[in-house]
Amino acid sequence: MTITDNPVRNGVDTATLFATLDAVKGDPEIAKFRFRATNTWVSGTHNRSTMHGFYGAKQEMAHREPFTFDADHPPVLVGSDNGPTPVEYVLHALAACLTAGIANIAAARGINLTEVSSTVEGDIDLMGILGLSDEVRNGYQQLRVSFTLRGDDPEKLRSVVEQSRRRSAVFDVVTNGVPVSIDVDAG
Amino acid sequence: MTITDNPVRNGVDTATLFATLDAVKGDPEIAKFRFRATNTWVSGTHNRSTMHGFYGAKQEMAHREPFTFDADHPPVLVGSDNGPTPVEYVLHALAACLTAGIANIAAARGINLTEVSSTVEGDIDLMGILGLSDEVRNGYQQLRVSFTLRGDDPEKLRSVVEQSRRRSAVFDVVTNGVPVSIDVDAG
Repeated sequence: MTITDNPVRNGVDTATLFATLDAVKGDPEIAKFRFRATNTWVSGTHNRSTMHGFYGAKQEMAHREPFTFDADHPPVLVGSDNGPTPVEYVLHALAACLTAGIANIAAARGINLTEVSSTVEGDIDLMGILGLSDEVRNGYQQLRVSFTLRGDDPEKLRSVVEQSRRRSAVFDVVTNGVPVSIDVDAG
Repeated sequence: MTITDNPVRNGVDTATLFATLDAVKGDPEIAKFRFRATNTWVSGTHNRSTMHGFYGAKQEMAHREPFTFDADHPPVLVGSDNGPTPVEYVLHALAACLTAGIANIAAARGINLTEVSSTVEGDIDLMGILGLSDEVRNGYQQLRVSFTLRGDDPEKLRSVVEQSRRRSAVFDVVTNGVPVSIDVDAG
């Protein structure tokens, strides 16, 4: 592939992207990241997270500003609707990760995009989290992602989505699961 | 347990919470929810999701306003830092779900909370998503949640966290995984 004709494609600086890949190949320690969110309870099901600092490329770094998000339950789930539910943020994370991957991979392959839009739906039976059934799982039973892509050759676009799925961090987490430890300081 | 002395505890309307549980016991169809996020690519790794409508309690419903969130990569990951990364939203979703559960369960048990705060950290080795190693997974390798709770008896507070973990939708999704299907309309 040639990148010299247009180093920025789909808004992706492919020259920097390839330089980053080369840097990581030369020193895999650069690739070890640690992300972080802090959360504070407000009232009832309403709480707020901030994402600011993270570790990566062998140093402590920070987003250009603290990003703050509210989560809550809607009234039908006995909340005050000050934000989306936690489970909706999972849908957003999945769509966002796959879409970022699509833009990067298309750019790396020299494929132009004019539109990427998606809808993610998740089915959940609240009999689980309400403690009313031990046979119903707590989380989503099924997630469905529907992508619409416009740009170059449709076959190439489909193959970009497939490669994004194969290399998506959130798709991996959501489909395969991750060990989670919980510590409690109660006093 | 008695709920008549204080129907609102920790900002949770326990009378409505118990009424909701009774309603679902009487008609399990009420518990079948479908959440939804729509996402639109902006440029590069920057994209935006909206959560507004959802299905639940046997009808199409909506949040009181559309909630819109940007995701992006920071400059070190060849993005423009217009929002947190998709993987950071997963940390937020996990903290938010566990915290909402803590508030609800404590209220249902008549336990008062004065503080619930948490930090969620996730370790990720980008050799996976960069396609530089087939032995490194794409997603987080480990998540750690640290809670600080203040309020009534510490033993009771710890038991509330444990029950929230047992009934958290996002904890279930993140630890056990969910089937995800992806459809593509490319043209």
